[in-house]
Amino acid sequence: MSKKIIVIGGSAAGPKAAARARRLDNDAEITIIQKDEDLSMASCGYPYYVGGFFDDRNLLICTPTGVPRDPGFFSNAKGITAKTLTEVTGIDRKQHTVTCRDLKTGTESKMKYDKLIIATGSLPRIPPIPGSTLKGITTLQSMKDADFLRDIRVNKKIKKAVIIGGGLIGIETCEALQLAGIEITVIEMLPQLLTFLDYELAKLVENHVKSKAANVITDNGVSEFLGENNILKGVKLKNGTEIPCELAVIAIGVKPNTALAEKAGLAIGKTGGIYVSDFLVTSDPDIYAAGDCIETNHLLTKQRTIAPYGDLANLEGRVAGENAVCGDCVIFPGTIQTGICKVFDFSAGSTGLSETAAKKNGYTSLITVINAGLDKPVFMNGKLLVSKMIADKNSQKILGFQCVGPGDVSKQIAMAAIAIKAGLTINDLVNADLPYAPPFSLAVDNFISTAHILENKMKNRMDGIACAEVKKLIDSKEKIFMLDVRGPEEFAAMRLGCGETLIPLGALRKRIGEIPQDKNQLIICYCKISLRGYEAAAFLSAMGWKNVKVMEGGIMAWFYPREK
Amino acid sequence: MSKKIIVIGGSAAGPKAAARARRLDNDAEITIIQKDEDLSMASCGYPYYVGGFFDDRNLLICTPTGVPRDPGFFSNAKGITAKTLTEVTGIDRKQHTVTCRDLKTGTESKMKYDKLIIATGSLPRIPPIPGSTLKGITTLQSMKDADFLRDIRVNKKIKKAVIIGGGLIGIETCEALQLAGIEITVIEMLPQLLTFLDYELAKLVENHVKSKAANVITDNGVSEFLGENNILKGVKLKNGTEIPCELAVIAIGVKPNTALAEKAGLAIGKTGGIYVSDFLVTSDPDIYAAGDCIETNHLLTKQRTIAPYGDLANLEGRVAGENAVCGDCVIFPGTIQTGICKVFDFSAGSTGLSETAAKKNGYTSLITVINAGLDKPVFMNGKLLVSKMIADKNSQKILGFQCVGPGDVSKQIAMAAIAIKAGLTINDLVNADLPYAPPFSLAVDNFISTAHILENKMKNRMDGIACAEVKKLIDSKEKIFMLDVRGPEEFAAMRLGCGETLIPLGALRKRIGEIPQDKNQLIICYCKISLRGYEAAAFLSAMGWKNVKVMEGGIMAWFYPREK
Repeated sequence: MSKKIIVIGGSAAGPKAAARARRLDNDAEITIIQKDEDLSMASCGYPYYVGGFFDDRNLLICTPTGVPRDPGFFSNAKGITAKTLTEVTGIDRKQHTVTCRDLKTGTESKMKYDKLIIATGSLPRIPPIPGSTLKGITTLQSMKDADFLRDIRVNKKIKKAVIIGGGLIGIETCEALQLAGIEITVIEMLPQLLTFLDYELAKLVENHVKSKAANVITDNGVSEFLGENNILKGVKLKNGTEIPCELAVIAIGVKPNTALAEKAGLAIGKTGGIYVSDFLVTSDPDIYAAGDCIETNHLLTKQRTIAPYGDLANLEGRVAGENAVCGDCVIFPGTIQTGICKVFDFSAGSTGLSETAAKKNGYTSLITVINAGLDKPVFMNGKLLVSKMIADKNSQKILGFQCVGPGDVSKQIAMAAIAIKAGLTINDLVNADLPYAPPFSLAVDNFISTAHILENKMKNRMDGIACAEVKKLIDSKEKIFMLDVRGPEEFAAMRLGCGETLIPLGALRKRIGEIPQDKNQLIICYCKISLRGYEAAAFLSAMGWKNVKVMEGGIMAWFYPREK
Repeated sequence: MSKKIIVIGGSAAGPKAAARARRLDNDAEITIIQKDEDLSMASCGYPYYVGGFFDDRNLLICTPTGVPRDPGFFSNAKGITAKTLTEVTGIDRKQHTVTCRDLKTGTESKMKYDKLIIATGSLPRIPPIPGSTLKGITTLQSMKDADFLRDIRVNKKIKKAVIIGGGLIGIETCEALQLAGIEITVIEMLPQLLTFLDYELAKLVENHVKSKAANVITDNGVSEFLGENNILKGVKLKNGTEIPCELAVIAIGVKPNTALAEKAGLAIGKTGGIYVSDFLVTSDPDIYAAGDCIETNHLLTKQRTIAPYGDLANLEGRVAGENAVCGDCVIFPGTIQTGICKVFDFSAGSTGLSETAAKKNGYTSLITVINAGLDKPVFMNGKLLVSKMIADKNSQKILGFQCVGPGDVSKQIAMAAIAIKAGLTINDLVNADLPYAPPFSLAVDNFISTAHILENKMKNRMDGIACAEVKKLIDSKEKIFMLDVRGPEEFAAMRLGCGETLIPLGALRKRIGEIPQDKNQLIICYCKISLRGYEAAAFLSAMGWKNVKVMEGGIMAWFYPREK
């Protein structure tokens, strides 16, 4: 007799699980039950539809050849029954049935399953503050939200909006609405945007967002939505400031949608996601779960974690679908929390642990480096990348990698994601054999040069100092000798203005007399990206100065205001 | 007493070795001896200068901040003496001296070394055929060559050129000269261009080159250069054809420049490169060698190999420089032969072993797949990638990966290069955690989906067949049922025209009666990229057909002429 498989949820993990199950078992009766009207929506594409990167809404709900992914498509092309506008209201695990409500008619019915796959996704977090039901407040989580915001783009009536939350979706929405000609303020409770990045890199992104005429307020939250006649007029911040706006987009993150699983008595993990084994089996052996609603393994910390990413939802769906028809034969190993987002002309990505996350997870012996450089040669119009690599000093394994800038961040993060999951060490990367030609990279790719610097630090050949540390020393009026070793033209065009001395690297050997004669004096060398800074520091150390540091990433990593 | 280090060669490996040595030993006396006028030329950039991607020649010989990398720069910024237009004519290993000839004055002098680093690079191979000294024949190996070809671009007098050799440099030169408005014919002795690719992918590149109005002749060589008054007028091919041309660029590859090392009695490897240990020490413990002149380890075949790539030259130089000053403490492990090139609107890259190379090296148990797909979603203007992955069936390790197309090939190859060097298996890649957002990739990245298909083949869930095999079957009038499962509009716009039957995937369940009733009949399913083809094949197999195959990569991988 053919196996009855029911999939709850029709966004990413659900349809993938159903399709995989079908490919491996042609006889199974497979049903997707979907609350929304649409199926397999390209939900990660919403911000780009709102931002006008494309105008054809169908592209979000059709196959690449233009066929709508509707119940007819699922039936004809895949032999899968898809019930849309249908909600599962309960799971009877003993009877192996689910209760469905048809949202058009209100009719309830029961359906039998042999194997059930829960892919109920996530729900946007909504701050528990007054006024959150006013008109003009939305999220960007559903096709309806996307339509609502796209209309705002088209109508051009709204002038001011706030984005509440400076995470991935907040920043993507910020760009989308800014491109729609709306004045944006992003409000973030924490001291920085994009918490998957460490502070220094997040601040570079923040500077870029601000340069695009969007306001950014960090370290502050919204305490109240202000309205008149049930219409949003502004937001009040925790510090009392009121910001007038006609639109507020809430993007403070998502939480696993576990209500149905909880009601059915399935185990929920400490992280708030549905508990699943590596086979993606829940606490009931006939029920699988996949996608944003589950918790999974963090492959580095060995802790459980939430990882609501569209790519993982697809991979998890594939595993759940296979196990549902073939028995538990394949595992989903877990995540290293790889993410990326476009931020106007920047990209920002991260994989593995940030320094902050590593420390939180008990790593005590970390070594890190910040490296600035181009993605390609100047003559091929190379663009800047600022990278941070985090390794464990004892094992020398790479724990994390972040990269921001206008350059090809995506490739850097992709390489790092493969390397980190493979457990590679610094030494494995210093002689990596990467694809080099001038249209694609520097002869020594940024990823490799970052590993080179980390190796130099590891071998005590370079003493690096982060910009933030340098700023603290300057602000505390420490006696430091700031040595800029760039050329005079570069200095005239851009400089910190922190009392630094300019001695171009090429003149340093002759002008050594201008360096403080106290050999214990702290000297901080830097240039645009700190390659020349490194050479200057090596020279001064060799000449007997005992306390010479290199400002990592140079001026390109300096996120504080500059004199010029 | 300070160590005397002499570096012979001032292109890539040499200056890198010298700079690394200086950073680690401030006291050493370091001298670079360079035959050419220029130092540290960005030689991989020559084709892009000739092709007009940029116009400022200085960009090839200056630092990113515009300082010429001349002897003054090396002296001032790095404390390195660089002697240009100076040739080393001999090495006296007993006396630890080199003999130099000043090419401007002819004066000879001797210099003492403690450690010597040979970085003499490579020489272009010149075919031993009549007429090769005619005016109008060049290579693209030196700054002079680049100037010569750039002048041709500027003067616009030359109408027809031939490129002899369809390898990496040949193809880059082809694009450069085609962009200069010259009618190009590429002549390649072997049956395909770019031999680092397998035949099927190379043919897709060839089709693209031809679509850009360049002629390509494979399986044929030049037997004679034809001239009048010592000026090139054409070339004669081995089959007798004469092709008129005013310019011929020889690009049949390079060979290690080992003359000096040989004369000094240093060991030369079987591959023709200078023998070096993993520390890059030659057969003389005081002499190192790095860059195009050496042979190195192939990390997959465990054989010695030649790897004349600019990125490896830099990495090798770094190792040689460090070992020369610190004693033999770091190794250069070897290469997996990663390469990439831009081919008009395509990129073509490869890492690890091609199927051909794997077979040549004795691998008997290979499994391969060709996968076509987009690099990003359609709504973000995704572009095509055609990938081939090669794995060992027993160990399941990935041995090679190739990718061609207008999409982001570079990222695909970079990920594969990290994965292959790390010894990852198919299973390690199927749940890779990559950076996903619509501006950068599909939810299931091409690299992962390629691994998915390979896994399906490995588990006998898909029986793939390459286009070339299909073509052979068609040509041999085998009885095959070619089943195109795309939509009618797609079929109207583009089709093979090989007697195929069109049944859209969505209609297949209903129109099953149109499939030949003989359950042993060979059926080949395909669509544009063969995802729907795979689903159709899974369905037909489940319905009892015993000989159903999927044409890998679909029509996008079909490199033969189509009806439409």
